[in-house]
Amino acid sequence: MLRPATSLSVAAPTLPTISRLGRGAAPPLRGRRSGTTVRARMPLEQQQVTLPSLAHREVARALAAEAAAAVPLLPSAVPVDVADFRNSAGTAVGTLDVRRGEPASSIDFMLHSSLHCKVPNGAIDITSVLIFLNALTDAPHFLMEFIQGSQTSMVVILDLLPRKDLALHPEYLQKYYEHTHLDKQREKIEELPQTRPYRSPSLFVRSACSPTAVSVTIDCGQGGEGTLEEIVCGHLASAVKEVLQIWVHSCARDTSEMEEAEREIMIKRDQAVRSKSIEVDLTANLPRMFGPDVSGHIIAEIRKAFGVQLQEA
Amino acid sequence: MLRPATSLSVAAPTLPTISRLGRGAAPPLRGRRSGTTVRARMPLEQQQVTLPSLAHREVARALAAEAAAAVPLLPSAVPVDVADFRNSAGTAVGTLDVRRGEPASSIDFMLHSSLHCKVPNGAIDITSVLIFLNALTDAPHFLMEFIQGSQTSMVVILDLLPRKDLALHPEYLQKYYEHTHLDKQREKIEELPQTRPYRSPSLFVRSACSPTAVSVTIDCGQGGEGTLEEIVCGHLASAVKEVLQIWVHSCARDTSEMEEAEREIMIKRDQAVRSKSIEVDLTANLPRMFGPDVSGHIIAEIRKAFGVQLQEA
Repeated sequence: MLRPATSLSVAAPTLPTISRLGRGAAPPLRGRRSGTTVRARMPLEQQQVTLPSLAHREVARALAAEAAAAVPLLPSAVPVDVADFRNSAGTAVGTLDVRRGEPASSIDFMLHSSLHCKVPNGAIDITSVLIFLNALTDAPHFLMEFIQGSQTSMVVILDLLPRKDLALHPEYLQKYYEHTHLDKQREKIEELPQTRPYRSPSLFVRSACSPTAVSVTIDCGQGGEGTLEEIVCGHLASAVKEVLQIWVHSCARDTSEMEEAEREIMIKRDQAVRSKSIEVDLTANLPRMFGPDVSGHIIAEIRKAFGVQLQEA
Repeated sequence: MLRPATSLSVAAPTLPTISRLGRGAAPPLRGRRSGTTVRARMPLEQQQVTLPSLAHREVARALAAEAAAAVPLLPSAVPVDVADFRNSAGTAVGTLDVRRGEPASSIDFMLHSSLHCKVPNGAIDITSVLIFLNALTDAPHFLMEFIQGSQTSMVVILDLLPRKDLALHPEYLQKYYEHTHLDKQREKIEELPQTRPYRSPSLFVRSACSPTAVSVTIDCGQGGEGTLEEIVCGHLASAVKEVLQIWVHSCARDTSEMEEAEREIMIKRDQAVRSKSIEVDLTANLPRMFGPDVSGHIIAEIRKAFGVQLQEA
């Protein structure tokens, strides 16, 4: 879940109809450093797979840009064949950008990815923005993930991921979740009649999220393409922006006084969450979309960002 | 929340209509050791307030009896004026039973309570069964709570309360929640068209629950009295029974090898959950229902069961 490809196994069974997502006039994949080079070496068939233009992708792009302007990040640091990648069958395409935080800042990294994968009845589009903090602070990470399985429905996960056991640390819950009124953003999304709760089949994913996490399926029903776009550009864009603002002001600039023992538990917890996410999700799903070679390459890059050692799959 | 009165503030705002619950032929409060004695000393007006007969109360009674037969409990240990209590205005009545676990067993206590409180538009009935374990094991506690605000709707909370940070301990999550297939019980209840998610306004309550917790409002709409009763006696009774069975087999008979440091964190966590529950819920709500004297007496008894020191309200 917490990773881009994560959600594939998670979301697919719950998406009511997986219809073709490609919109006739979708622009070709462009603007990324490596696009042209990579494509020039590819057979024609593969070049035709592009990331379709989707409202949710625009919202994520704007959000990532806003985040990048608000927190101290180094320039992008992924190899060209990770920045843009696709499978050999020409049915899946993706982009991945990882920017590390500036030295001495509390930002560990920002990861922004988009995946598009054709499936028998259509396609799945997954877009993620994660901003993880390092051990200079115990403040929550930022997580946003959109999983769109048709032109009328999608899954939204939006959360500030806690880094402490909330039942053991009510003061942490109060500081980052109650005082920030985060739950209001969840309420605003959940009161839309088109939403229903989305439960990840992974109990681990559910456990890692905060009690204010937005985790919903937005389903606008047959003919609801326009409605979904309105919701994405309206309510959803507004909620993700608000949550990012809360995170920037309450978390990204926070450095915490922590006892060493407490910091150690937090680091251990962070590692558990990162490793388990990669194990449960990426290792299981990305190979199915992109084949072993491409996915191995991408997973290695994500492991690097996450600071997680390679484990036997 | 996790206490009987807890849920009053929690549930009331979400209950769609609070209509009178009293059913004409409701039998008088009977069969509890102190009932007659207490009632004999009371003015006539107060004697008329009785715990109405409700399907959910029967389900809880059967469940508590089943639990008592399955785990080693000492006889009931509450004073007579705690076993049955009511307020001076004659608008609220309650019963509380606490049985401690046998010495050397891993059972800390079983608490079974029923509250009935008239409110301007009707009444609220709350029934809880909690079975808490001690530090001989790290296995989850059992929690069941029904909050009925009308003849056609109620809130249900049913969970095995984790005693470890699930994100830090995936093996604990696997042992008690995945391998036991607990989530199937949640699914069975949530797939009923009359249910919708119930979110406690307390983020702490949400944080204390497991990812497989049943937390729903069952709303059968106008004229749905019979439907609610069918659901309570059918699906709900079956789910609570299944969850109790899982708890009895996987948790109640479990003793855990734990490192001392781990046990200390667990005890600290248990204390935090117990104290915070009492602080957030009971201290705030019970006095409004039963007045300061009666509620003080009841809260003191619950504190004793919970092993939580008195704190300034």
